[in-house]
Amino acid sequence: MKKRVWLDAFGCDEPGAVLCGAAAALREIDGLELVMPGDTEVLRSSLESLGADMSRVELIEAPQTIYNSDKPTEAVMKKRDSSMIKAMTGLRSDAGAAGLVTAGSTGAALAGSAAFLGRMPGVVFPALASYLPTQEDRMAVLVDCGANVDCRPEALKTFALLGAALAESIGRSDPKVALVSVGTEEGKGNAFSKAAFAMLREMPINFVGNMEARDAVSGKYDVMVCDGFTGNVLLKAVEGGALFVARTFMKELGKAAPKGADTGFVNAAFKATMAKMDMQSLGGAMILGVGKPVVKLHGSANERSVPNGIRQLLELEMSGFSARAKQLLEKTV
Amino acid sequence: MKKRVWLDAFGCDEPGAVLCGAAAALREIDGLELVMPGDTEVLRSSLESLGADMSRVELIEAPQTIYNSDKPTEAVMKKRDSSMIKAMTGLRSDAGAAGLVTAGSTGAALAGSAAFLGRMPGVVFPALASYLPTQEDRMAVLVDCGANVDCRPEALKTFALLGAALAESIGRSDPKVALVSVGTEEGKGNAFSKAAFAMLREMPINFVGNMEARDAVSGKYDVMVCDGFTGNVLLKAVEGGALFVARTFMKELGKAAPKGADTGFVNAAFKATMAKMDMQSLGGAMILGVGKPVVKLHGSANERSVPNGIRQLLELEMSGFSARAKQLLEKTV
Repeated sequence: MKKRVWLDAFGCDEPGAVLCGAAAALREIDGLELVMPGDTEVLRSSLESLGADMSRVELIEAPQTIYNSDKPTEAVMKKRDSSMIKAMTGLRSDAGAAGLVTAGSTGAALAGSAAFLGRMPGVVFPALASYLPTQEDRMAVLVDCGANVDCRPEALKTFALLGAALAESIGRSDPKVALVSVGTEEGKGNAFSKAAFAMLREMPINFVGNMEARDAVSGKYDVMVCDGFTGNVLLKAVEGGALFVARTFMKELGKAAPKGADTGFVNAAFKATMAKMDMQSLGGAMILGVGKPVVKLHGSANERSVPNGIRQLLELEMSGFSARAKQLLEKTV
Repeated sequence: MKKRVWLDAFGCDEPGAVLCGAAAALREIDGLELVMPGDTEVLRSSLESLGADMSRVELIEAPQTIYNSDKPTEAVMKKRDSSMIKAMTGLRSDAGAAGLVTAGSTGAALAGSAAFLGRMPGVVFPALASYLPTQEDRMAVLVDCGANVDCRPEALKTFALLGAALAESIGRSDPKVALVSVGTEEGKGNAFSKAAFAMLREMPINFVGNMEARDAVSGKYDVMVCDGFTGNVLLKAVEGGALFVARTFMKELGKAAPKGADTGFVNAAFKATMAKMDMQSLGGAMILGVGKPVVKLHGSANERSVPNGIRQLLELEMSGFSARAKQLLEKTV
């Protein structure tokens, strides 16, 4: 399989850092080909000065940029010459490409991929998925983590299928799919989650019922589904709780450590712990259910997260995610 | 003010542990008077054998128990002779009592207090509030944390007022009230939260706008309001994230510590950190907006959490919470 990836370097905190990331990815990933829309002259001179292997870079003229301050649905319709939309329209007809990596506006990436990348059969709205670390040292999948804040319960059927295909692509067999709720017992939840429960239990997936957010990172579940509002709150609250313990512990350690105590091993353990929670190394959020997957990096994407995001996208496609997702969707939706 | 508290010891994991807690509370809290419904003979002999000061205990005959497996709305109507409902009907006409502490069914406590304790003017559904620890070493208030999973945006007006009165009662002046959403910018959120936003901004409170769940325990906000489904997910996800870091760190420490290394100070710091996250010592959830406040302890209530819950209830009333809440509600709703 060709390792051909579209990379949108604009509309993020620091496009220059994404270019450093592009150069790093070309060095680190054998056989990688990048297609990059933007001001081609600027892109060429910047990448050349970073020592990027230009024989593996294709540049596409795209004079506009979509910013985070733009209204997403408007921007994707009006800024057809932006790097993001040029990437999407180009990607759609580029059969050999794995997908798109972007650090630009999440809203625009979602609206744009729904409009320009095509959707998998049965998918009305693309979903935003995230990996979460777990205590079992393997990742869990959360769908939706922020795209569909006002969806209908039916949408969770698609989220569950896409999530299951994603979990399979990272090595889970017969992944355990749970519905985010306020208690594990059947019948717990709000009207929305109860309606979704009734639908999920009829599906040909390993639906294990309701889950509590306390278990989001315990490793009990492989796929967690919910609407995008709930998923976003869950994801960020987990992060908040983790940071609370981390910061409080370092403060308490400062108080408890006797003068001259050897704290080297404590710092090493602490670093190893925080590395597991590091969202940048876990990769970007993934827009799923569209013609080609999109990895949406954090706006602060850099030399480390760009190569990681490109690897994440390549693994997704090489693991057969899209084929499996389509198969599950065809059987069910 | 009289320190008179109703205590319901039944319908929880271990009523015996709650009785130990009652005896401990009588020892620890000067002037405390307990009113306890249940099988009076069993209560008397158990409390006597625990050395409780029976001159400060009033027993009320209540032969029934509401269990967690009972359907809450049905149970509160049919089991009028249960310890929980006897406590609520008794409390309503007991002007000198501060409120009720129970470790029984949360659903029944909510349905029962709405039906039997009376509501503050303007309150349609009672709210469930929780304290959360923060990095600023003071508690924040979350309303609703699980009672109203299917409420309308209007309900958040009441949650905000009750939350503000609660935050004032623990020492915050002009408490910062935030709406749980998926981003801090105005306009972020789902249809529900956007409708609530428009209402909250018109209220005579210090409404600071949308917040992200990442900041739930950062100390940035004094009061966080949302529907009960979102609040429950937020609360438990914070706990899950905290536990993840705590457990992962202890595992990594085991790997990183050289043989014979002094880890005593690390364990001390770790213990101090976890104590701040300990929900049992933070107290119970509070049912607010009803005639008298109810502190709902965890089902695993014990010798330590019962006296804490009783103190929490007494502080609530002695701080003037109810008077302040009524004042705010009258001005607004």
